[in-house]
Amino acid sequence: MTFANVGSLGALPGRRDELVAILTRPSADLAAAGCLRYDVGVSDEHPDAVLVVELWVDAASHHASLGLPSVRAAIEEAMPLLSGEMGGFRFDVVGSPLDGVGIA
Amino acid sequence: MTFANVGSLGALPGRRDELVAILTRPSADLAAAGCLRYDVGVSDEHPDAVLVVELWVDAASHHASLGLPSVRAAIEEAMPLLSGEMGGFRFDVVGSPLDGVGIA
Repeated sequence: MTFANVGSLGALPGRRDELVAILTRPSADLAAAGCLRYDVGVSDEHPDAVLVVELWVDAASHHASLGLPSVRAAIEEAMPLLSGEMGGFRFDVVGSPLDGVGIA
Repeated sequence: MTFANVGSLGALPGRRDELVAILTRPSADLAAAGCLRYDVGVSDEHPDAVLVVELWVDAASHHASLGLPSVRAAIEEAMPLLSGEMGGFRFDVVGSPLDGVGIA
């Protein structure tokens, strides 16, 4: 069952774009680990936050990915840039109005 | 620029699955309007919420979709099921570690 992990990561003032750079660094590991989407973005409504949408083949794959050396290294590199403010939610995808229709 | 709209919709007690059914009803309109992903799900952490991840070709397409008759009808159908609790965030996607790597 597809698993979604969406979150907002608070960055220290002026450090947001460094955080974006770390999170968008190309990683073949993630795709191999079952990551379907990993979209990183920003919003004028949250100027010091990096926003992320992740979709995984299932929750176990997402959980296992946190043990990958490349992911652990990225987390370690990102930690000093974080303000500590975090939000978001996770869920199991149960369906889509796009199933079997157009772009999926 | 890809646009992400993620949100949690509170359902009245016992009405969550009816809300899921409305949001997952197949819709060719959304794909035609530029919807790339529309994943609807649930979570034990939020038993009375329906959680949604939407990805659109851009913010304008998402905004325009709210005027589609089928979308307006679905919103109208869903309203009586909502508790009023809502959350989430929107952002412009600036990159992905999956760009040019494996599954995109």
